[in-house]
Amino acid sequence: MIYRVDMTRGTIVRQPVPEAWRNLGGRALTSTIVAAEVPPTCHPLSEYNKLVLAPGILGGSKASSAGRLSVGAKSPLTGGIKESNVGGTAADALAGLGVKAVIVEGRAPAGWHILYLGPDRAELLPADDIVGLETYAATERLLDRFGPRHAVLVIGSAGERRMNVANIGVTDVDGKPSRHAARGGLGAVMGSKGLKAIVIAATADLARPAAAVDLNAARRRYAKALLGHPVTGKSLPTYGTAAIVHPINLIGGLPTRNFHAGQFEAVDAISGEHLREIILARAGKPTHTCMPGCVIRCSNIYPRGEDKEPVRGFEFETIIMNGANLGIGDLDIIAEIAQRCDDYALDTIEVGVTLGVAMEAGIISFGDGDGAIHLVEEIQKGTPLGRVLGGGAVLTGRAFGVERVPAVKGQGMAAYDPRRFKGTGVTYATSPMGADHTAGNALPNTVLPGVGPIDTTRPDHQVMLSRYLQQLAAAFDSMGLCWFSRGPILQDPSLVEDLLRAQTGGEWSMASLLHLGWYTVQTELAFNRAAGFTAAHDRLPDFFYKDPLPPTNDVFDVPQEEVERTLAEEFTL
Amino acid sequence: MIYRVDMTRGTIVRQPVPEAWRNLGGRALTSTIVAAEVPPTCHPLSEYNKLVLAPGILGGSKASSAGRLSVGAKSPLTGGIKESNVGGTAADALAGLGVKAVIVEGRAPAGWHILYLGPDRAELLPADDIVGLETYAATERLLDRFGPRHAVLVIGSAGERRMNVANIGVTDVDGKPSRHAARGGLGAVMGSKGLKAIVIAATADLARPAAAVDLNAARRRYAKALLGHPVTGKSLPTYGTAAIVHPINLIGGLPTRNFHAGQFEAVDAISGEHLREIILARAGKPTHTCMPGCVIRCSNIYPRGEDKEPVRGFEFETIIMNGANLGIGDLDIIAEIAQRCDDYALDTIEVGVTLGVAMEAGIISFGDGDGAIHLVEEIQKGTPLGRVLGGGAVLTGRAFGVERVPAVKGQGMAAYDPRRFKGTGVTYATSPMGADHTAGNALPNTVLPGVGPIDTTRPDHQVMLSRYLQQLAAAFDSMGLCWFSRGPILQDPSLVEDLLRAQTGGEWSMASLLHLGWYTVQTELAFNRAAGFTAAHDRLPDFFYKDPLPPTNDVFDVPQEEVERTLAEEFTL
Repeated sequence: MIYRVDMTRGTIVRQPVPEAWRNLGGRALTSTIVAAEVPPTCHPLSEYNKLVLAPGILGGSKASSAGRLSVGAKSPLTGGIKESNVGGTAADALAGLGVKAVIVEGRAPAGWHILYLGPDRAELLPADDIVGLETYAATERLLDRFGPRHAVLVIGSAGERRMNVANIGVTDVDGKPSRHAARGGLGAVMGSKGLKAIVIAATADLARPAAAVDLNAARRRYAKALLGHPVTGKSLPTYGTAAIVHPINLIGGLPTRNFHAGQFEAVDAISGEHLREIILARAGKPTHTCMPGCVIRCSNIYPRGEDKEPVRGFEFETIIMNGANLGIGDLDIIAEIAQRCDDYALDTIEVGVTLGVAMEAGIISFGDGDGAIHLVEEIQKGTPLGRVLGGGAVLTGRAFGVERVPAVKGQGMAAYDPRRFKGTGVTYATSPMGADHTAGNALPNTVLPGVGPIDTTRPDHQVMLSRYLQQLAAAFDSMGLCWFSRGPILQDPSLVEDLLRAQTGGEWSMASLLHLGWYTVQTELAFNRAAGFTAAHDRLPDFFYKDPLPPTNDVFDVPQEEVERTLAEEFTL
Repeated sequence: MIYRVDMTRGTIVRQPVPEAWRNLGGRALTSTIVAAEVPPTCHPLSEYNKLVLAPGILGGSKASSAGRLSVGAKSPLTGGIKESNVGGTAADALAGLGVKAVIVEGRAPAGWHILYLGPDRAELLPADDIVGLETYAATERLLDRFGPRHAVLVIGSAGERRMNVANIGVTDVDGKPSRHAARGGLGAVMGSKGLKAIVIAATADLARPAAAVDLNAARRRYAKALLGHPVTGKSLPTYGTAAIVHPINLIGGLPTRNFHAGQFEAVDAISGEHLREIILARAGKPTHTCMPGCVIRCSNIYPRGEDKEPVRGFEFETIIMNGANLGIGDLDIIAEIAQRCDDYALDTIEVGVTLGVAMEAGIISFGDGDGAIHLVEEIQKGTPLGRVLGGGAVLTGRAFGVERVPAVKGQGMAAYDPRRFKGTGVTYATSPMGADHTAGNALPNTVLPGVGPIDTTRPDHQVMLSRYLQQLAAAFDSMGLCWFSRGPILQDPSLVEDLLRAQTGGEWSMASLLHLGWYTVQTELAFNRAAGFTAAHDRLPDFFYKDPLPPTNDVFDVPQEEVERTLAEEFTL
């Protein structure tokens, strides 16, 4: 079923799933709905925009790492279509209720609201008691009121203020809003509608069609494969995503001081190894799940002292963009930034890129940790400076006359310098999402089917690699499957084919999944073209083509005419 | 000759005029050069952008109202090509030196510079003694140093800070930098190059080819026609451009409180009639020239007390956008804003639109004159709030989460609400300049050749009218001819044909001028397409289509499919 929530009228309607949407889920579904129902030229904060939630196709299957939620809308950050993908408990809760999608449309004429979705009721309630609260306090109050067996989506004050860096917090397995639909300012879209929180009963269980494959057996085989793979079974559970700090630095593509360098002299102090040491010394948790039943457990709990909320899910991107990228080599300072971002529901990547631009502008100096924390506080307070920073990296660059802004289509880059991660650079340049590593990140030696492992530091094969990865990522986002599970799945596609068969009753293959990814990306590109995007937007900022990146002195040298053709053809096996 | 000034190397080269550029001038020439030499996707503040100055074809002819200068670049405000057109003394001075264009390229590695152009030398000099000064003080110092017979172009602190609202001040007949190449943030482009001022000796006289028509006779006949026309001979010299405050208000299209209404209750207090009364009572000048030899004399000098610099050229757009649009019905308060904008070299239209958005955001209230003055001071100081406002209306709207921003392609609208001035609305929507009334303003009863006078409050004929006016305006901008002189010229095209013959030695007609306008606009559109603009950008903000404008309750109802075809075909006589 689909819930259509009209914030203008205050009504909620249950609708059957249209036939054309029946085999879609996650990103494929949110992008299809946004493209079908949102006027591409509308203002992203207007009543014409819609906020769409959809569990992935595997939502509610209780397979490991398969409970991710897609949140879609026209992005106030990029001006294009956006799908923001988040773990936590919400997708499985929605799927349990039999909900394929929630479409929030219109705009409340006044006041703040909570959308409650339970097995026997769906209603809009006043949010007076949580307005102005940041997400940890708001969530605690919501779970007190509705009971612990609920998933919560919630915005902070930044979302209430409709800031571009505002995201949507989602509760983790411990009821903390530590997971985030992070990118593209979707918290501002939620805020523009007068919606402070969505509370979903996590008590129901999904009714599934009869299938030729037993779901329990498929789940077990898949979980065993994850646990047996070196990345998902060892590296990620041990060091979390920060496992790659050292490798990325060694390659010379670690964004350092607003992308002025590719290696950071204080890398040891912000590495996954050092992170683990600190967590163990403070009796934290070096491994922890973000979604129920995930066996990868790449999350963690980083203690910050008795009186402080720990950082839950202290990630590579957060650490690098607010560490090396700012010249800050101290995990405790980065943790201060990270936990503020989590509590206020701010995109840690966009904040990191923005603070780098602020340092470039001379507002504070590179390496000034206290200054960086102070600037995040400005965002939370909504001061004029906070409004600039809360508008993201591009807006900050424009306000302060800074040319060097590492962003594409209005969105700041993640922790891979495109001069050394050229396939990721192609994705930054061409993804309908803007600079977004989650849209198709090319780590070293990624295997391109038919070609083999690719050296991402050289320009050849990068366009084909990005094309493949963008389709693959869109497919994973549509299944609700965590991208980190791809290792064993690409080695043995029957793992995911069986899960999909058991969940849907239909037949799937890696080829059909890649085609679903192609369909999804093309749907998004069509929206963006109608919104005014052209090949002129499919490029990196000038400085990546001309400023050599120390120490390798690489530039981004994938030929532009090839880059522009990245998504012009379908990748097929 | 052309001067090519390389700020990176600190060199100045004289070049002959390429054959293809020989018959161009003003906007046709600046847009041709920008389109040919600036990479459309470059950052507007980068060394790849160029600042191009060109007198019109009639520059140096000493015909009335024919000494306007075109300044071109890629705009940091719109991201598209920009031509900003300005009166004052600079165009004639350049033309006198035989200069067809000045192309400022690259970017100074350090320091601030003055470009000096004289009959026997052209050089870059250090600007240490005027950096940080606002334009009136800087100009005074420059004229002290170089002598009074010089034209000056100068930026203020806002241009030095590379703000989007920064423009370029140009000296008037009294040596005051009261004329402005106002729109599109070209002051920021000049600032990005490390160029504080351009000083041009106004002592030389243009050598002209032999022509079949006597220039003196052509000038006299044309001046007589201007003086005999009711608009240029009576209304403009008496009330200045503020003559139309009452008419625009009567029609119900006077932007009031951020375009929430089309009539202003305090209109009498900001009318041209009242302006004249105040000026006369204070022994100011109700009529004054902005360019040497102009017989229209639509400028004025508005005294503000002994210790204060008077406002020179207190214009309709400035008065309405900082008056009615802000709910301020007091000319002295508006004059405080206007003179600050002039001194700091800020675009008064963009500032007015921006302050309206700031009031919409609740930063200050509509009608708060002291607050508005204070906000302009914030821009000058470069505080964080000033940085937001200095970024223009769209950036302010984004920073403060405001949907209602009256702008197209990043540029704020002028003092004609498109719901009642529908032809101007079509121009706002489709001009390569963004929302810019000077690109083709359709005042009531404008005569469309072949059709007759057009009612601009109805949707029919508006697209054809805008097409005609956009070509005509581009032709006037290319001639260096003030748009206000069009009345007698459209009645008797031989007036301008004779001037052009005498100036150039060639043959011209109204048809060939309209074709020059077509060529110019198409050159600009091609640049913009390559920069990433599409039909999706050729539209007004949503609210003009849906929010009725009191008291007539009109919306903008020219069919969008027609609007998008405005510049797809050439208007021919």
